[in-house]
Amino acid sequence: MAAVTTNATIVTFGGRLLKLTHQSATTGTPMNFNLFIPPGASSSKPAPLLIYLSGLTCTPENVTEKGFLTAHAGPLGIALLYPDTSPRGTDLPGENDAYDFGSGAGFYIDATKEPWSKNYKMESYVSKELPSVVFNEFKEIDSSRVSISGHSMGGHGALTLYLKNPGAYKSVSAWAPISNPINAPWGQKAFSGYLGEDKEEWKKHDASELVKGWKGPLNALVDVGTGDNFYKQSQLLPENLEKAAKDAGVGGLEVRYQDGYDHSYFFISSFGADHLKHHAKFLL
Amino acid sequence: MAAVTTNATIVTFGGRLLKLTHQSATTGTPMNFNLFIPPGASSSKPAPLLIYLSGLTCTPENVTEKGFLTAHAGPLGIALLYPDTSPRGTDLPGENDAYDFGSGAGFYIDATKEPWSKNYKMESYVSKELPSVVFNEFKEIDSSRVSISGHSMGGHGALTLYLKNPGAYKSVSAWAPISNPINAPWGQKAFSGYLGEDKEEWKKHDASELVKGWKGPLNALVDVGTGDNFYKQSQLLPENLEKAAKDAGVGGLEVRYQDGYDHSYFFISSFGADHLKHHAKFLL
Repeated sequence: MAAVTTNATIVTFGGRLLKLTHQSATTGTPMNFNLFIPPGASSSKPAPLLIYLSGLTCTPENVTEKGFLTAHAGPLGIALLYPDTSPRGTDLPGENDAYDFGSGAGFYIDATKEPWSKNYKMESYVSKELPSVVFNEFKEIDSSRVSISGHSMGGHGALTLYLKNPGAYKSVSAWAPISNPINAPWGQKAFSGYLGEDKEEWKKHDASELVKGWKGPLNALVDVGTGDNFYKQSQLLPENLEKAAKDAGVGGLEVRYQDGYDHSYFFISSFGADHLKHHAKFLL
Repeated sequence: MAAVTTNATIVTFGGRLLKLTHQSATTGTPMNFNLFIPPGASSSKPAPLLIYLSGLTCTPENVTEKGFLTAHAGPLGIALLYPDTSPRGTDLPGENDAYDFGSGAGFYIDATKEPWSKNYKMESYVSKELPSVVFNEFKEIDSSRVSISGHSMGGHGALTLYLKNPGAYKSVSAWAPISNPINAPWGQKAFSGYLGEDKEEWKKHDASELVKGWKGPLNALVDVGTGDNFYKQSQLLPENLEKAAKDAGVGGLEVRYQDGYDHSYFFISSFGADHLKHHAKFLL
């Protein structure tokens, strides 16, 4: 297990916010992540964990500074884990050419196409290696109670990792998720670049496809702002997720359309209380 | 009355966050400010206003993105006004040479020393012109119910404007305020540069001096983090304010020392709920 370096420890909302770095065996790069440990958590009374996956262009810092999830996680006694959105500094050709592919845009899948397949393994990193590192290093966190959430690309990540790994997470939530990436420009570009042109492969990483095979209630909360330009541009397609779940007879999916809200952290922070309360129902 | 330009309108916490610019007659420059109008506010049911003055180097954006005062102001029905911390772009020699003098460091006083005296009139701007512009343009705000708060240099600003203008504000609060600037390096540098070397003049802009003349209860809440490096470096000196108030028999000042908290927005946001509740007692 690689050692974890602590870059900063900050007291906030009664808990500790840690800015951390470790050498990832999965991505082959150093990876930054932030961890909030709520007040009262200890090895004898470990806190449940909510993983939050960020959207395109983000590092762990954006949600740390602008998400305000700690305000609600602290009083509830829930830990928060903020991974990065891609490997960094691989020097692959074109890595930094676009905001929606390469650096900052790992899409929480394991690339199978060269040259990305060596480092861009964000599915394995986020669902396997990083939690293992966290549970090994921080005994204040309870590995048996984990939920997952995310925003935009990270909403896609949260929904698909949840649907791919039944039982691994207690509940899921998403703000403005890319809900049907095989039918949206962002998803098509990413899947083509990381996975190639076999569209049957793409379906394995699409929440609106994966939901068809779900058994039991989804324990899912989704918020979308009606003033969100990416929603208007059909990048998110939450209606397709709703229809797929309904057609498949899958319940427990609440999708809310929030009047006038945009795609920003002003939207995320406005509904953080509701998302933490949603997860608390399943984690506490 | 100069027109106000709206640069952005954002829905957050049920209200509207406006990013605004106007041409200030006081500073002679364009000035940015942000305004949060809570849900339910209207010309027939105007909301009370809390002014928040930012610290060194900040623009109105910092607290807007990282302060999360809106999370508490929205449900309470309190409007928020975030002014800038100095004139910008005056091209005065040295304006941008230091983080603690000139641009981003107006100290909420009216400079009397050349060349700063022409533009650096942040006391008049924040206490007179800007509220007048806001009340004229936004009838959803109640000019008869106003309180004031701030952080660090802005905490100095909030305390001194409150103490200089009895009756103008219903209550005051500050996070990590520069409480006795005439005895602190930041204050001494600023007052020397803006006001000259007459230390009797400096006292007119020092909360620990001004509090001696206060009549009645202070209605004041102050938070300071014990992990704040500027507190440790004796830039803030809240104990001097406490002692001065006590010696003068002035009550209604609650100073809290928060264990381990630093000087950052992680500290400000952690105690935003308490500060909004404090002001709500006097505004609602």
